[in-house]
Amino acid sequence: MEVILGVSNRHVHLTEEDYKTLFGDEPLGVVKELVQPGQFSSDKKVTIKTEKRAFDGVRLLGPLRSYTQVEVSKTDSYTLGIDPPVRNSGDLEGVSEITIVSEYGEITRNAAITASRHIHVDRKIREERGLVGIDKVSVRIPGEKGGIIDNVYLKDSEEAYFELHLDTDDANAHLINQGDEVEIII
Amino acid sequence: MEVILGVSNRHVHLTEEDYKTLFGDEPLGVVKELVQPGQFSSDKKVTIKTEKRAFDGVRLLGPLRSYTQVEVSKTDSYTLGIDPPVRNSGDLEGVSEITIVSEYGEITRNAAITASRHIHVDRKIREERGLVGIDKVSVRIPGEKGGIIDNVYLKDSEEAYFELHLDTDDANAHLINQGDEVEIII
Repeated sequence: MEVILGVSNRHVHLTEEDYKTLFGDEPLGVVKELVQPGQFSSDKKVTIKTEKRAFDGVRLLGPLRSYTQVEVSKTDSYTLGIDPPVRNSGDLEGVSEITIVSEYGEITRNAAITASRHIHVDRKIREERGLVGIDKVSVRIPGEKGGIIDNVYLKDSEEAYFELHLDTDDANAHLINQGDEVEIII
Repeated sequence: MEVILGVSNRHVHLTEEDYKTLFGDEPLGVVKELVQPGQFSSDKKVTIKTEKRAFDGVRLLGPLRSYTQVEVSKTDSYTLGIDPPVRNSGDLEGVSEITIVSEYGEITRNAAITASRHIHVDRKIREERGLVGIDKVSVRIPGEKGGIIDNVYLKDSEEAYFELHLDTDDANAHLINQGDEVEIII
């Protein structure tokens, strides 16, 4: 079974409260709808920083969420001098501290993770593709730097677009790009 | 069969002629012997640059070679705005142009590659470990971001230390580090 790849660069999610601290009453605009229903690349960028280093121009994804989360690759983590755990979105107990800066303010939160490899599914997709009751799969990557990627979690939402999400480390190590099709191994 | 991992950060090899252009009559000093017999981390660093960006403090490895080569990860390549092919060391036909800068001078060469995944072997190692006649293997990586890495070439030299070389993209994607032991699959 094939799945389309989406590559996640470092990005930020914010709670409404943290958004207000960073952007006040400015509306959160949509720059581009993502393929996951309701999700979008917003018109807001922030700086993420630690005592060691900072990355400017990090995109805030929308809509606002019930948690503030900063997703970085392991390569980013070495640059930042932090060691965030590999986590599913929203599982933020004990994750790494990071500071998020805008023109107007800054917040420091235990919010930095490296995202688990995952595939977005919903009930209909699971039924249609024979994925009911399956928690995780592997994915076969073709090519000169190919191989098999393990521990790819199926992530349920009410309505999903069937898509594999990998971070830039996984994509760059395997020489694969946004929109590539790869094979699921169950 | 287990093999020890060595992680290669971006680095440079130089010919004697290019070394002289960049460092004149300065002797090439040894900072640290590498585990591959005769190879060393030198006391010289350079800047590697393209029209888009530069990396400072890139280590020159010794001894000098019959070719000038710059090894970068795919992640580095995006930063530099180049698209070097995946190659074995010394296979430089048609590879990417890059400029190497020292305090004293600079050279521009078709020299940038992303290194193939490889394992250093010699005749004795091949015989002792049942690897005679084998060109490439795969490697199993354990852990949360584990999987199987394909197309790992056996690289012969007269005298080798049995060691897997991966670049920082492969290491960071799989959350593995210098000195880790991983399993070869033939």
